[in-house]
Amino acid sequence: MGKKLAFGSDYMLGAHPEVLDALVRTNMEATDGYGYDEYSIAAREKVREACGTPDAIVEFLVGGTQTNATVIDALLRKYQAAIAIESGHIATHESGAIEALGHKVVTLPGQEGKMVPEVLEEYLSVYFGAEGYQHMAVPGMVYITHPTEYGTMYTKEEMAKIYDLCKQYDLLLYVDGARLAYALASPDNDISLKKLATLCDAFYIGGTKCGALFGEAVVIPDPSLVKHFFAIIKQHGALMAKGRIIALQYDALFTKDENGKYLYDKVGETAVNAAEKIQDAWEAKGGKLQFRSPTNQMFFVVPNELIPTLEEKIICSVWEPYDETHTVIRLVAGWGTTEEDVQGVLDVFASLEGIGIKTYPQQKLAIHA
Amino acid sequence: MGKKLAFGSDYMLGAHPEVLDALVRTNMEATDGYGYDEYSIAAREKVREACGTPDAIVEFLVGGTQTNATVIDALLRKYQAAIAIESGHIATHESGAIEALGHKVVTLPGQEGKMVPEVLEEYLSVYFGAEGYQHMAVPGMVYITHPTEYGTMYTKEEMAKIYDLCKQYDLLLYVDGARLAYALASPDNDISLKKLATLCDAFYIGGTKCGALFGEAVVIPDPSLVKHFFAIIKQHGALMAKGRIIALQYDALFTKDENGKYLYDKVGETAVNAAEKIQDAWEAKGGKLQFRSPTNQMFFVVPNELIPTLEEKIICSVWEPYDETHTVIRLVAGWGTTEEDVQGVLDVFASLEGIGIKTYPQQKLAIHA
Amino acid sequence: MGKKLAFGSDYMLGAHPEVLDALVRTNMEATDGYGYDEYSIAAREKVREACGTPDAIVEFLVGGTQTNATVIDALLRKYQAAIAIESGHIATHESGAIEALGHKVVTLPGQEGKMVPEVLEEYLSVYFGAEGYQHMAVPGMVYITHPTEYGTMYTKEEMAKIYDLCKQYDLLLYVDGARLAYALASPDNDISLKKLATLCDAFYIGGTKCGALFGEAVVIPDPSLVKHFFAIIKQHGALMAKGRIIALQYDALFTKDENGKYLYDKVGETAVNAAEKIQDAWEAKGGKLQFRSPTNQMFFVVPNELIPTLEEKIICSVWEPYDETHTVIRLVAGWGTTEEDVQGVLDVFASLEGIGIKTYPQQKLAIHA
Amino acid sequence: MGKKLAFGSDYMLGAHPEVLDALVRTNMEATDGYGYDEYSIAAREKVREACGTPDAIVEFLVGGTQTNATVIDALLRKYQAAIAIESGHIATHESGAIEALGHKVVTLPGQEGKMVPEVLEEYLSVYFGAEGYQHMAVPGMVYITHPTEYGTMYTKEEMAKIYDLCKQYDLLLYVDGARLAYALASPDNDISLKKLATLCDAFYIGGTKCGALFGEAVVIPDPSLVKHFFAIIKQHGALMAKGRIIALQYDALFTKDENGKYLYDKVGETAVNAAEKIQDAWEAKGGKLQFRSPTNQMFFVVPNELIPTLEEKIICSVWEPYDETHTVIRLVAGWGTTEEDVQGVLDVFASLEGIGIKTYPQQKLAIHA
Repeated sequence: MGKKLAFGSDYMLGAHPEVLDALVRTNMEATDGYGYDEYSIAAREKVREACGTPDAIVEFLVGGTQTNATVIDALLRKYQAAIAIESGHIATHESGAIEALGHKVVTLPGQEGKMVPEVLEEYLSVYFGAEGYQHMAVPGMVYITHPTEYGTMYTKEEMAKIYDLCKQYDLLLYVDGARLAYALASPDNDISLKKLATLCDAFYIGGTKCGALFGEAVVIPDPSLVKHFFAIIKQHGALMAKGRIIALQYDALFTKDENGKYLYDKVGETAVNAAEKIQDAWEAKGGKLQFRSPTNQMFFVVPNELIPTLEEKIICSVWEPYDETHTVIRLVAGWGTTEEDVQGVLDVFASLEGIGIKTYPQQKLAIHA
Repeated sequence: MGKKLAFGSDYMLGAHPEVLDALVRTNMEATDGYGYDEYSIAAREKVREACGTPDAIVEFLVGGTQTNATVIDALLRKYQAAIAIESGHIATHESGAIEALGHKVVTLPGQEGKMVPEVLEEYLSVYFGAEGYQHMAVPGMVYITHPTEYGTMYTKEEMAKIYDLCKQYDLLLYVDGARLAYALASPDNDISLKKLATLCDAFYIGGTKCGALFGEAVVIPDPSLVKHFFAIIKQHGALMAKGRIIALQYDALFTKDENGKYLYDKVGETAVNAAEKIQDAWEAKGGKLQFRSPTNQMFFVVPNELIPTLEEKIICSVWEPYDETHTVIRLVAGWGTTEEDVQGVLDVFASLEGIGIKTYPQQKLAIHA
Repeated sequence: MGKKLAFGSDYMLGAHPEVLDALVRTNMEATDGYGYDEYSIAAREKVREACGTPDAIVEFLVGGTQTNATVIDALLRKYQAAIAIESGHIATHESGAIEALGHKVVTLPGQEGKMVPEVLEEYLSVYFGAEGYQHMAVPGMVYITHPTEYGTMYTKEEMAKIYDLCKQYDLLLYVDGARLAYALASPDNDISLKKLATLCDAFYIGGTKCGALFGEAVVIPDPSLVKHFFAIIKQHGALMAKGRIIALQYDALFTKDENGKYLYDKVGETAVNAAEKIQDAWEAKGGKLQFRSPTNQMFFVVPNELIPTLEEKIICSVWEPYDETHTVIRLVAGWGTTEEDVQGVLDVFASLEGIGIKTYPQQKLAIHA
Repeated sequence: MGKKLAFGSDYMLGAHPEVLDALVRTNMEATDGYGYDEYSIAAREKVREACGTPDAIVEFLVGGTQTNATVIDALLRKYQAAIAIESGHIATHESGAIEALGHKVVTLPGQEGKMVPEVLEEYLSVYFGAEGYQHMAVPGMVYITHPTEYGTMYTKEEMAKIYDLCKQYDLLLYVDGARLAYALASPDNDISLKKLATLCDAFYIGGTKCGALFGEAVVIPDPSLVKHFFAIIKQHGALMAKGRIIALQYDALFTKDENGKYLYDKVGETAVNAAEKIQDAWEAKGGKLQFRSPTNQMFFVVPNELIPTLEEKIICSVWEPYDETHTVIRLVAGWGTTEEDVQGVLDVFASLEGIGIKTYPQQKLAIHA
């Protein structure tokens, strides 16, 4: 497999070397457990500083589904539902983890992977306007991803609109940042980490897909929002005995280089630049993108007969049918994508005949895992 | 309110007099609790006989949502999901009760309130055909209602197709019979109680809406399917200390009269006959039905300006928008609907001007509680 | 069985005739569902008045386990535990219903069925004093029963101490009043309904065991404590379509007679008087009581060889072993216990030889269902 | 802190250098995710071989509480309870994680940290013998730890007795092996890994406390016992995107050296030898052990006035009060405990005056976190 170009996902490699080094360097030190050690305390402080949230709850969890499940369950009352769009990660690819904790996931149609403020507004006004609304699951929060499952991003204005609606209807807003580094590094992005912290009630800074061996950093700017979060984390099986292991990784990711840049920023840039070049090349050859991605995930509309050739040379994902003769293929760049990897994909594209399509019938919805 | 015609639902009155009488007659007798008494034992036996299922588990629960939640939770493993159509009761009007027990409700588009075997088949084949299907909630059962939330019914052939699919994919089939009496009494129905018991793994015979003061009778033909159902019922808060109270009502409902007819049959007939007359009258005046209901729920497409007049005289429900100028209004007949009630509605209809509509644009989906 | 004296429990008969009459009288009236009808509104008001809590949330649920599960789940955050004594109903006889909703039940040793303020205080001070206390389930409430599973009662002072501890440690206090009528009617009781409403955060006024056909009335004096209780009730399968059915029963129970006495008071008095006479007779014959009960449950220490004779004539419960040669037998009087019933028991006692015991070795703990 | 002797727990260091090296060596390789990669496949196979269970389900999870919660939830039906002893990890130190998944943890008194077969037998015979046993939570499994929270171990005979009881009552037996390496390495141990696989239905081979950076390997010898375990793991937030990260660590731990010894064996030996020497020294000075530990955890009965001196030099845990003037102090050796560490403790012991105690009043039970 090593010989193929690795664009299957952003979790195919281990950790960014500087992150791994932090673990190696400290390996034989004896510290307290459960995040009480000095490294954990320091890493939390670095994250708080990067977010401009001096009082925030910051905790380090292991993976994305675990983080979503733990945070959503911490934010909601037992009987409350979360609102997501139909392609939202919690609605599709978490094996029912949110419902397993008792919370219905109410889904709304999205657009290019994003929740549409107007659709949310209509839903909320109809829902809370219905006399017997309590017969239906009562929403307690809105869940969005940034960047989305389709690599797209919210603008500051869009996210602010959603947050305003949340406040109007007494809902919390939670942002899943599994791939946050790739949004932060996108030239199109206008939501900095500090800005994000003012646009929602809770979010996480993804590590697993963004340079860490594994790990996600939860940030809850207003600490009064969740009491006993330590116990909640433990109860969800999300507390590491050696809490420092994730903390050390975030310490590395949020250490600035000589130019004042976080490693977390650089991780994102590498991938976003790679994705830009690859998408450019595809379009230059007349190829169609499902939509132009400003981040590290790319979605190519590929004539079905070309898929075997692609898959022979590139590890990639068959995403969903586009129409009867075309399929959406996803490639994902990451912090470890090299110039050679990019050139390799460009070479494959160059070798393909008949990339372009003329007509695009209505895309069918699909199940993809 | 007593002066209005009561077509708001089939739970507006108390119990059929013969049912109530069973409670009054036995009130001062001292019996064992928790369904161990002779009345409970006898009533279970009567239900088993009516269903042709001599070995079935039969238990009496209090209400519909409770019954759905308890039975679904008993049938599923903890991690499994239930498949329903978008308008299925568990998907819409149970305040998230199924999810509160940990089970995702996966929804498919339905047709006139019914699950479409072809849609289900496509879903299952795509789902189980996907390599990483376990990243999505794993379905363990299919949930349907008969008659449906829209008063429609499955044919024997349709239900058999769904059950075959269930067996093919190792799923259980559960039928919510909250209004079962009204299907059994419909001239169009070809699924008898005995037939139903062979077309699914579990179902309930609704009482609350079908002549009982309250109560639902769960029937699980193959008793090996659920172990410790008593404990499960108790754990769900669904066990009555005075178990006989519901049992006595089912004893009355499944006692035959001199013509060999169960009271449960007669309860259904009264309502179905009333609904037929009322729908006939509406259509005779040129009115449109959302669709013709073969049971006791009726869905009228009413010009918006006529709604105040209707609501002034009839207790009914504003169901959902039909188009910009028309609304679907639901009337429900029940075991207690009298000839006078029917005539009353006919008189109201006769007094209305402009019932008929000519064009029917695409109906918008709606939230209704 | 009708020939035996019925002292097996206080749920062996149906309803007090005045309660049943309320159902019969209104049976053919058509009303709104789900507790929106006039009868439900009126009954809630009567309960509020009886409790001296004009703003209280009052809702009518079906049974005890359901009520405990629903209220505890409504009061607690998802991750919190309830503290009870080892013999508390939620800790022993609810098939794990509280844990099924996610809440650990932490148990403390009790005394004569009561929580001991000093034991609670020690537990809380040690628990919250432990550095890593969040590794253990975090308590969010204290659960007590009044009267207890052993027929005993808290004094005003005892309950106030417990409530003070709760407030000190930021816990809620919930009182299970499944048999509340029998405490209210006890000459030893110093906690009136109005007083009770000031000594805890939530409680319920038991109906199933106190004259109703079934039903429990939840009272939450401060309505800001629980939001969306309607949705919570529905989600727990505890909402009746015909909400009026329980409400009408409470209306009857909280209607005053010509002497200004509630039926609920009279229900209790009948049973407490009966229990007093029966316990007197046992002690007069030299018999030992496990402890003297001031309410309607009685616990007799019976030589093992006399049990068959007792059980032949009286429906009663083998409660738990007392020592190797004696067993605790429970008799329960109720609202329907007649003078003849009492005399019958006295006659049985009179016929027994060798009731008295001299030495009482340490009683062994036991499982009883 | 680095200057103190690190005996606070066996999770204070990072990973055994050979384990860490496996991560470093493979860091820049691109592999499939979610345990589908070659490393994960190979590691599962090695564990199967070490356990003599060619068909076993083997999955790698992150931590102990997560593993217990996931496996117990996978083994039990929704309504079932787990039986543990009062000091069992799931009963005390998992923040209610098992109950959060719906399962009551029924506790029995243990002896020196072990479940006593006779106590279990009595419980089961009384429980299942009780007529109304389903009113109490129905047990579905027995949970034990080996070695226990007190460092003690089951003999082959004891565990076999417990397993026989489980089979007799249709329960599953699950063994928590968080510190399994230290039992396997104990001279007193007669339960090999292969033997263990025949003495229970599921167990896990602890990594976090036994040389891994983190990770636990679940082994379910009979794969028919759990269906869709992948989905269950994912739903519990326990699936790592980079599944290989834990697998590689187990690959290292279950690689044999030139003498045919697994690294996992050597990890255990280091700690057990250290603990033996330290306990010998304590007893040689007249000190009392709460009980002699055959594994890596040691429990010293320390006069209260000596505790400050101990804590100044050694990182250790104040475990529980022993009597009014003595306290149990826990020291834990690990794979990283060096000869110098051991000598350091011996030196501290040598410096202490008045270790010995003469009388040992009944120890009080205590909360410790």
